[in-house]
Amino acid sequence: MTTNEKALALHEEWKGKLTTESKCTIRSREDLALAYTPGVAEPCKVIAGNQEAAYTYTIKQNTIAVVSDGSAVLGLGNIGPYAAMPVMEGKAVLFKSFGDVNAFPICLDTQDSEEIIRTCINIAPAFGGINLEDISAPRCFEIESRLKELLDIPVFHDDQHGTAIVVLAGLINALKITGKTPERCRVVVNGAGSAGIAISKLLISYGFKNLTLCDINGILCESSPNLNWMQKSMLEITNPDKRSGSLKDALAGADIFVGVSAPNIVTPEMVQSMNQDSILFAMANPVPEIMPDTAKAAGARIVGTGRSDFPNQVNNVIAFPGIFKGALEGRASQITEEMKLAAALAIANVVSEDKLCDDFILPEAFDPNVKDAVCRAVMDNIKPDGRNIKA
Amino acid sequence: MTTNEKALALHEEWKGKLTTESKCTIRSREDLALAYTPGVAEPCKVIAGNQEAAYTYTIKQNTIAVVSDGSAVLGLGNIGPYAAMPVMEGKAVLFKSFGDVNAFPICLDTQDSEEIIRTCINIAPAFGGINLEDISAPRCFEIESRLKELLDIPVFHDDQHGTAIVVLAGLINALKITGKTPERCRVVVNGAGSAGIAISKLLISYGFKNLTLCDINGILCESSPNLNWMQKSMLEITNPDKRSGSLKDALAGADIFVGVSAPNIVTPEMVQSMNQDSILFAMANPVPEIMPDTAKAAGARIVGTGRSDFPNQVNNVIAFPGIFKGALEGRASQITEEMKLAAALAIANVVSEDKLCDDFILPEAFDPNVKDAVCRAVMDNIKPDGRNIKA
Repeated sequence: MTTNEKALALHEEWKGKLTTESKCTIRSREDLALAYTPGVAEPCKVIAGNQEAAYTYTIKQNTIAVVSDGSAVLGLGNIGPYAAMPVMEGKAVLFKSFGDVNAFPICLDTQDSEEIIRTCINIAPAFGGINLEDISAPRCFEIESRLKELLDIPVFHDDQHGTAIVVLAGLINALKITGKTPERCRVVVNGAGSAGIAISKLLISYGFKNLTLCDINGILCESSPNLNWMQKSMLEITNPDKRSGSLKDALAGADIFVGVSAPNIVTPEMVQSMNQDSILFAMANPVPEIMPDTAKAAGARIVGTGRSDFPNQVNNVIAFPGIFKGALEGRASQITEEMKLAAALAIANVVSEDKLCDDFILPEAFDPNVKDAVCRAVMDNIKPDGRNIKA
Repeated sequence: MTTNEKALALHEEWKGKLTTESKCTIRSREDLALAYTPGVAEPCKVIAGNQEAAYTYTIKQNTIAVVSDGSAVLGLGNIGPYAAMPVMEGKAVLFKSFGDVNAFPICLDTQDSEEIIRTCINIAPAFGGINLEDISAPRCFEIESRLKELLDIPVFHDDQHGTAIVVLAGLINALKITGKTPERCRVVVNGAGSAGIAISKLLISYGFKNLTLCDINGILCESSPNLNWMQKSMLEITNPDKRSGSLKDALAGADIFVGVSAPNIVTPEMVQSMNQDSILFAMANPVPEIMPDTAKAAGARIVGTGRSDFPNQVNNVIAFPGIFKGALEGRASQITEEMKLAAALAIANVVSEDKLCDDFILPEAFDPNVKDAVCRAVMDNIKPDGRNIKA
């Protein structure tokens, strides 16, 4: 049986990957009177008088929604909310397994941005946070930013920020090894969807000065065809040399390549044209932009992929569970830029100096220290006036 | 410590009464590859090709939403969605404990009927059913009927139908004891909100011919002030004798009183004015319309209340877990009138003839036979062309 066949059979056996479980035993009339009527009226009355008490008495304190409209699921594209469910259940499982955060999948039977926004607002009372997932660009940008504005609980689009945080963490360690500095590196990000744009923004926040975004038509510049509003706005902070041309043109003389794009589009020649000690994160799944051995043979120093069967896996699971754990424990009202940067640094620092090497720049998904390090970094960056104050 | 104090302390200790738990162990890269990427793409692809497969591969097959807008919570009234959460979590706990149905509380930050309807439709893909809870009348009638029309999963407003089913079950057994027949009984239902109206409808469906609804202004009739559209429509099937007057007038010569109204509004004199072998379900909580001993002293034969510390507790928990269990297992698209009637009969029949007596007309909440009996009754009444065919 292949992994895929086994996965399908297991999904049938699991009958859904999540259950809801009661924390209270209901075995007697007294149990009923405490967990339900009449006793339950007591926390209700307290919350009715003070909405903040919802964090004391309800699941809001440690439960998030994993929200998707199924418009951009894995590499499968717009498969809709029903077909997206196994992924969202899986995400909820990861939140629980890696972060001890309760998570429930909400797959929306609408792809209208306004409807998605309103639905999230309507269901928010039960939840302490919203993880947006697999929503296509550029809609995801507007949905997330509107929700951040309208809700007082953290809203986080993991495809954007989870990926960006882990990429930055990996680059921080890759720079340590190569002795490069963010100010002097030329970075090329290939793929101008949700992940590519979020990666670019976070790298620039961190201090990278020269970053060029590419998409299927090559370098994003004033003359690029069919740019959406977000891609256009990225021109203001990327491509400072006002280059135009192909991915190949972009890579000549670059230090860092970050791919969230398509299989096999980076050639050995392109790698050869990069600066010495080049760093490549080729994260197209399941087939990367260039295979690690090919890249290394062409002169790359450090190569990461999205795959667990090569070194340096760039895997969101080392970020999102700790991010939400920290946000919930610290009662953050938002996941801010500072928290993301701190989370990336924390992840980078989990790799001890004695272990850090070309083939080990990121902690393993199962490293038990990761979640706590990320959680602490997030909590340390909640503003002093902290709780439910937007930053 | 009183029960209420203990309940509050326990709610603080529980930190929310529900958790989400993973059915799959995630301890290795292989586990990850099966429950999440890349393996998870397999069930996604199958569902993308055939939406029905969501019932095979996702939590939809055994998970419901407990949806409330917090507009009519217990006896507390319109306390809003945050304060309603402890009740909805409690309801979810009961679904799990008594019916082995996974349930998740969705408390809506809107009391606009159209918004509620749209939100339920939007979140439906994850759920195999929707239990509406504590939504005020007459909005609850429209919300439920519109959702039944628009969704292909069962939608059930428990405050209406759960209560009605258990009342009917109790009356079926009370009639056995008293030898009365539904055709010849005069019934008075006091309280013309969601429960009172649903009880009236189900009793009439079952075969009661002479039923009078009362509210705070007395008998519902053409001249009653301020009737809402649902109460007006009830005039067509209730009050066949075209009576008017007070609750006292209604009860004179009645056989059955069903109260879902207010404490202490039935006097011994009113009970004395009823027919012999009168049956009273005085379900106002926590203080009934008349205390059982007072009612019995005044001549009542059979008395039920909503309380667990008196005999004959009329408790929804003997209905709703089995109702949804049966609907999910049989993949019913709706909870039909036939299912409700069959559930009431099944509950009545759980009380064996040798145990049936004035003070034991309904099974106990913890009777292990109830859920299965109700579940089977529901499944037996799914139309032969059953699955997702609306009835």
